Amino acid sequence: MANTEGSKLWGGRFVGDTDPIMEKFNESITYDQRMWDADIRGSKAYVKALEKANLVSTEEMEQILQGMDQISEEWSKGAFLIKPGDEDIHTANERRLKELIGAPAGKLHTGRSRNDQVVTDMKLWLRDAIAMLTDNSLQLISTMVERAAIEIDVLFPGYTHMQKAQPVRWSHWILSYAVVLSRDVERLLEIKKRTNILPLGSGAIAGTPFDIDRELLRTELGFDSVSLNSMDATGQRDFVEAEFLFWASLCLTHLSKMAEDLMLYSTKEYSFVTLADAYSTGSSLMPQKKNADSLELIRSKAGRVFGRCAGFMMTLKGLPSAYNKDLQEDKEAMFDCYDTVHAVLQVTTGVMSTLKINQSVMEAALNPDMLATDLAYYLVRKGVPFREAHGLSGKAVFAAESKNVSLNQLTEADLAAISPLFGSDVSSVWDYRSSVEQYSASGGTSKSSVSAQVEHLRNWLKTRSP
Amino acid sequence: MANTEGSKLWGGRFVGDTDPIMEKFNESITYDQRMWDADIRGSKAYVKALEKANLVSTEEMEQILQGMDQISEEWSKGAFLIKPGDEDIHTANERRLKELIGAPAGKLHTGRSRNDQVVTDMKLWLRDAIAMLTDNSLQLISTMVERAAIEIDVLFPGYTHMQKAQPVRWSHWILSYAVVLSRDVERLLEIKKRTNILPLGSGAIAGTPFDIDRELLRTELGFDSVSLNSMDATGQRDFVEAEFLFWASLCLTHLSKMAEDLMLYSTKEYSFVTLADAYSTGSSLMPQKKNADSLELIRSKAGRVFGRCAGFMMTLKGLPSAYNKDLQEDKEAMFDCYDTVHAVLQVTTGVMSTLKINQSVMEAALNPDMLATDLAYYLVRKGVPFREAHGLSGKAVFAAESKNVSLNQLTEADLAAISPLFGSDVSSVWDYRSSVEQYSASGGTSKSSVSAQVEHLRNWLKTRSP
Amino acid sequence: MANTEGSKLWGGRFVGDTDPIMEKFNESITYDQRMWDADIRGSKAYVKALEKANLVSTEEMEQILQGMDQISEEWSKGAFLIKPGDEDIHTANERRLKELIGAPAGKLHTGRSRNDQVVTDMKLWLRDAIAMLTDNSLQLISTMVERAAIEIDVLFPGYTHMQKAQPVRWSHWILSYAVVLSRDVERLLEIKKRTNILPLGSGAIAGTPFDIDRELLRTELGFDSVSLNSMDATGQRDFVEAEFLFWASLCLTHLSKMAEDLMLYSTKEYSFVTLADAYSTGSSLMPQKKNADSLELIRSKAGRVFGRCAGFMMTLKGLPSAYNKDLQEDKEAMFDCYDTVHAVLQVTTGVMSTLKINQSVMEAALNPDMLATDLAYYLVRKGVPFREAHGLSGKAVFAAESKNVSLNQLTEADLAAISPLFGSDVSSVWDYRSSVEQYSASGGTSKSSVSAQVEHLRNWLKTRSP
Amino acid sequence: MANTEGSKLWGGRFVGDTDPIMEKFNESITYDQRMWDADIRGSKAYVKALEKANLVSTEEMEQILQGMDQISEEWSKGAFLIKPGDEDIHTANERRLKELIGAPAGKLHTGRSRNDQVVTDMKLWLRDAIAMLTDNSLQLISTMVERAAIEIDVLFPGYTHMQKAQPVRWSHWILSYAVVLSRDVERLLEIKKRTNILPLGSGAIAGTPFDIDRELLRTELGFDSVSLNSMDATGQRDFVEAEFLFWASLCLTHLSKMAEDLMLYSTKEYSFVTLADAYSTGSSLMPQKKNADSLELIRSKAGRVFGRCAGFMMTLKGLPSAYNKDLQEDKEAMFDCYDTVHAVLQVTTGVMSTLKINQSVMEAALNPDMLATDLAYYLVRKGVPFREAHGLSGKAVFAAESKNVSLNQLTEADLAAISPLFGSDVSSVWDYRSSVEQYSASGGTSKSSVSAQVEHLRNWLKTRSP
Repeated sequence: MANTEGSKLWGGRFVGDTDPIMEKFNESITYDQRMWDADIRGSKAYVKALEKANLVSTEEMEQILQGMDQISEEWSKGAFLIKPGDEDIHTANERRLKELIGAPAGKLHTGRSRNDQVVTDMKLWLRDAIAMLTDNSLQLISTMVERAAIEIDVLFPGYTHMQKAQPVRWSHWILSYAVVLSRDVERLLEIKKRTNILPLGSGAIAGTPFDIDRELLRTELGFDSVSLNSMDATGQRDFVEAEFLFWASLCLTHLSKMAEDLMLYSTKEYSFVTLADAYSTGSSLMPQKKNADSLELIRSKAGRVFGRCAGFMMTLKGLPSAYNKDLQEDKEAMFDCYDTVHAVLQVTTGVMSTLKINQSVMEAALNPDMLATDLAYYLVRKGVPFREAHGLSGKAVFAAESKNVSLNQLTEADLAAISPLFGSDVSSVWDYRSSVEQYSASGGTSKSSVSAQVEHLRNWLKTRSP
Repeated sequence: MANTEGSKLWGGRFVGDTDPIMEKFNESITYDQRMWDADIRGSKAYVKALEKANLVSTEEMEQILQGMDQISEEWSKGAFLIKPGDEDIHTANERRLKELIGAPAGKLHTGRSRNDQVVTDMKLWLRDAIAMLTDNSLQLISTMVERAAIEIDVLFPGYTHMQKAQPVRWSHWILSYAVVLSRDVERLLEIKKRTNILPLGSGAIAGTPFDIDRELLRTELGFDSVSLNSMDATGQRDFVEAEFLFWASLCLTHLSKMAEDLMLYSTKEYSFVTLADAYSTGSSLMPQKKNADSLELIRSKAGRVFGRCAGFMMTLKGLPSAYNKDLQEDKEAMFDCYDTVHAVLQVTTGVMSTLKINQSVMEAALNPDMLATDLAYYLVRKGVPFREAHGLSGKAVFAAESKNVSLNQLTEADLAAISPLFGSDVSSVWDYRSSVEQYSASGGTSKSSVSAQVEHLRNWLKTRSP
Repeated sequence: MANTEGSKLWGGRFVGDTDPIMEKFNESITYDQRMWDADIRGSKAYVKALEKANLVSTEEMEQILQGMDQISEEWSKGAFLIKPGDEDIHTANERRLKELIGAPAGKLHTGRSRNDQVVTDMKLWLRDAIAMLTDNSLQLISTMVERAAIEIDVLFPGYTHMQKAQPVRWSHWILSYAVVLSRDVERLLEIKKRTNILPLGSGAIAGTPFDIDRELLRTELGFDSVSLNSMDATGQRDFVEAEFLFWASLCLTHLSKMAEDLMLYSTKEYSFVTLADAYSTGSSLMPQKKNADSLELIRSKAGRVFGRCAGFMMTLKGLPSAYNKDLQEDKEAMFDCYDTVHAVLQVTTGVMSTLKINQSVMEAALNPDMLATDLAYYLVRKGVPFREAHGLSGKAVFAAESKNVSLNQLTEADLAAISPLFGSDVSSVWDYRSSVEQYSASGGTSKSSVSAQVEHLRNWLKTRSP
Repeated sequence: MANTEGSKLWGGRFVGDTDPIMEKFNESITYDQRMWDADIRGSKAYVKALEKANLVSTEEMEQILQGMDQISEEWSKGAFLIKPGDEDIHTANERRLKELIGAPAGKLHTGRSRNDQVVTDMKLWLRDAIAMLTDNSLQLISTMVERAAIEIDVLFPGYTHMQKAQPVRWSHWILSYAVVLSRDVERLLEIKKRTNILPLGSGAIAGTPFDIDRELLRTELGFDSVSLNSMDATGQRDFVEAEFLFWASLCLTHLSKMAEDLMLYSTKEYSFVTLADAYSTGSSLMPQKKNADSLELIRSKAGRVFGRCAGFMMTLKGLPSAYNKDLQEDKEAMFDCYDTVHAVLQVTTGVMSTLKINQSVMEAALNPDMLATDLAYYLVRKGVPFREAHGLSGKAVFAAESKNVSLNQLTEADLAAISPLFGSDVSSVWDYRSSVEQYSASGGTSKSSVSAQVEHLRNWLKTRSP
């Protein structure tokens, strides 16, 4: 290999070649080219600040801006040619600029370091990514809320410990996930806030010694504010990375839980829901199989994304101040988490908008045992302390099991043997709809309460939509 | 073992005994007793709502309140006796209440489930914990900011890649960590906001069927708002747990980095700082050793705490809706993370307030090579494009190395051989203080910029202090 | 606090007091006292080597041995009194020895460092722990294998993607977990091998300068061999810790999967199995609930234990050579993983030995659709290429769905319309038992193959039992 | 999009299209094409078993074998064309086979499922990967051992707690990592053993119903044995994946520690070693910088790889039995861990074979304080109990510090004031070489002991080399 050093940014000093395996180990252009647009936007803003500081002439600025526009066009057309020595997107764009406009290209990096350049690029990229994920999330939540509004009259078993617990509205279940996802959106907006602070002008570590107008850079690039400390700005990755990776993990953990529920509901054993064919696949061996692959993939991605977070946190642990090459691990993790969450949110939206529910099966799955708490409450309303009423209702459950009948088939005599307070009006307990309607306090599963949840979320969606 | 079932909350139905290993596996009183106060506060508020709903009489309410106060006193005096069958703090307190006041105790749990009770207790506990950690963090940041203000005139080498990069102020380094910690405080306050939503009144899953005034509960317990959906409120742990555990991980990762820096600075090789004896220990074998144990422990705890976060995230992954016993893992993780961060923040404050710096060593560690960038800027100011100037400065470094002299010992002739633009005024480059003063843009390491950072943080501290 | 320095091992040099929070942060006696027996065994062996090297007299050795025996007795009786200044078990035991026998106690640590002492103690402790866990695992596997032998005639649906796939023997399912657990036992024995290498005699870092007979130590303490390099022996934790923590994670991940299956099988919807009351609990609110708490806890512990592994790996990452205080995190992780796996294995054994199966429900859950693969094989046997046969069988499934009948209710005409090769002998396909018997190749679900698996595992158990 | 269902393996039944995002979410050909060779090898063996079972004719077998050879050639030439509908490598190869040889291709999958096919492919692939990594590891260890042999006479400071502890041989440090890496090789060989069990013939879940000779498959594919249970063989990933991912994490954690040491040693402050230019890079801003990028990258990769392990473990947690689509996450993790470790081992070998050491600096970094333990031993040899001697030596250190002289500059009078046992022969203590030579017990840092370590490792390397 001929001496390729000349094409490297640090030029001048090194005399030996590098090991080809080391070259490959070191480069990031394979993946960081994805930030080509952010890199160009950052450089265009920077050259304006250079011009204002008289470090380039107006004419040089124009040349650089035009060169950058041409490079941008090459990238968008897929015509940009990566050359040996282009170790990262920053080097590649500057190398190309030099080819296009010659000498003035050498002034672009004045007072700038790759350390502040790369963080700026990442923040610009992530800001767009966050906007897209917010949009994806809102679409999913909106789909869920509207579905909940339509199917509000469907009852089905609410489960705790994977055991039938109490009758609830199907919409109540849907909304339980809409609510947790709405918290995820709130979290994402908080991260956006912290992402939106301009690092450019921090140099390698000490700041910039030239009269670079950071306020101009801020305005040009649409940041909310300017970073406070240059060592922090170039060396920490919390606001860009760790926090976003964990957000992705938390969001997908929530969706892994929702997918698990839906997978249960779509088994032959439950048969509450039927997945659209578009989100199912078959088996290469068993012709009768229809697998809920989409849900399994959704469930699995929580692990993938959390792995990225865990890996990057471990990389950060104990790392000395300011920039270390270890931080190069940040980008692949960020891209992969974005891609994964972006796909999962869309697929989940598809699943939720095409799912068929089997209302009759859902309601047939309710059983009188699930009203045992109501039976206890019947006694509570007659003045029995809850603990005692709970015990008596438990005895009724046991009596029904012993007689091998369902709880509502116990005779008045059976019940009277358990407590003299049981009267003929106990029959009013055995109605699922009226059971559900009792839960009308805020957050409960009555129709009015669920409708209020729908309204609340619709309003929230309005405040969060662009 | 005699039948101990009678003392369990679910009474009535089960006939067999449990396996003693299973009993132990199942119980949580060993650790959740720590929430005794939160549990009592929650129950005292709840009985007021019960009275308003006519589910207990005013007299019964008074009995319960007094009973609860007595239990509270027993706990604070260390006189509360845990009995077999007290599987968790909720059972224990209610069992004791029954011993103290008899029958009315059986009414306390009306319409409440352990599912909403336990989340309420955890949120009350965590709210206090967050307040304490905020306070600890602010104290640490304040210590750092004031130290930075005092030692603002001390220069030392700024490092990137663990190599000497550019001269910076020691205060600039301190503030870089103060800034990242201030972001951690902002994050903590966001978590507090999400923690401070009342779950009580959500029952097991479906809500409450009684006329429980959740607004009254909210006011009594000082929550900001009331949870929107009962399945979400009882089954999700994101706002209490996962988020807090990750916060702890991120905060300690930051401190692991700071500890690593300080550990380097306190080695014989650097000798920039000397740890107070109070934060060092010796060796059982080597009499001369003085180990920076405090820093090593701080560094290590990031792993511990992140492990808790990773473990709980894995437990959550793919878990079906609503309450599952798996969630019992939440409390030990929460307590351990709190205890660890609480200790680390205090020890770090101790370290930072007693550390001695060795100014002369710090400044002697600066070397002319660290001004190579300034040498390039010298040429930039004479109109050389930065890339070319960087290459020329690199050649100067190489020339100095070849001659085995330091960069500032190159003769005018040496420099002229590299570029005719080098004149006698190049000597002005070799002053560390004036080098540092160039970095006066916001975020930079000049005295004015660092002072501005100090002021900014002082103001921020005021807005965040209670 | 009075000067407590005097009681610390490193005495002599420090003049300041330590911060009480730092003291607590630094100490490990709270948890490492659990290794009291290992510490005493290690010291007893060490003093014999000292005597052989003429560093203590025979009489001094006897005094030390007797003192150590007395301390051992105090610990076993719970009579050992921990005093302020006993920062770890090693300090505590030596302090007590001095109280008991005076001056000669001061000779025990000659040429030894806490660095080699602590690793030796941990290895002794872990060796016993591994023996116990091996035993627990073998008991569980044995329970499973014998259950599989007894219930070999029970069929039930085999699932893939949580969808009914093909009929299999219930024993086939049981054995699938017995097999993976047998691999876990093999892994544990490999770890034992690496644990069983003696580090004592490695000093702090450089080895021992005295004539300590490491071979004598090895024999006394029952190690297989002697460590090769003293820096490695005192500074690495891979063989003791990281590997064991991961083993625990992998083993519990397997059990989390088994618990998930059993939880599904024990839902009302499946009703394949009924958990013994001893491994279930009830609800504080819903009298009818019987929750599979044991299974939920088993499932959850994989997260806990993996969290410990993740945490410790993160602590290790990037740590410099030889002993650093960060390693102190090793012990709590090791103890917690041991305790957790120890409990989980026993509870799982209890669950598996008391579980009731509902054979009729299991077999009723089989349906003709699950024989669609066999239907394809029917055609394959008539010469149709599998891909085509698979397609034709798929068409039959579709036809049956369209007619809303089960697959075996398609008429000859229906089938003939799909392929003329379907004849009246197709009826032979619809027998679950004969379907299962086809899978007689090794590893399959036929009776002979499953019996062979049972025999294989019985033989393996014999070779692994003590 | 036209109906593409026809080209999917499960054909026949589905009527709707899939969502394009779902298609992309579902496919794995993008990455699993990497196993093309393993897939072809597996199919070639399988068709031989089909022929023996009379499921294909000899002629059909020949056609399939030739077709497979042609596909293999296409892949190796980069001429294989992936078409829409080729969702994974298995589908792609079979689709191509059909294009090449027509009808007989449809017989290849008889009695096989993608479930056993994919595990077989992964095991074949991983077996090769393990062989390569073993080779890479042995080369690194060998480089280290030979370097240690050559530089055995170089002394330098051994550190604990990042503080100078005792003089040791530089080779002793090198070998400490060679030893831990040799354990990693042993672990890898254990994983290879568990990987090398044939799953083919397990079908989807129940085994194979045809007369497939699994022993023939085993021999053809070079496996050690045949899997025992078909559900285990198709549904567990422990032996292929989790274990390998953790191995990668543990190995890179060890190298992260070694990299950290070397990074310290290569700072200006230590200056013990100089990295070859081939493994360093410069700065885009600071001309004088020479950054140890290779070491930083090595250090960082432990996080990346552990993240993969953590992610996959989380994906596995709580997954029901047998194959679930979630397992698709296994391959990218496996490939990435392999690629990363493969690169890291080679780069580390490069670093270690080109590193220059600065012997004079290393030896000048030794200081008399590091002999304080030896000073204590001097007293021990005169009969002072070690604890007392340690205290007295500590006092000497303190006295030297107070006088601001080094320990060996204390006068006889100074020392006599501390203990009358100090005589003029104390001067013998102050020789680093003789200090080091004391540590001649096995594992110690004397020349004989280090030479023995070298010999031991050379012999071990011989036994492990192919």
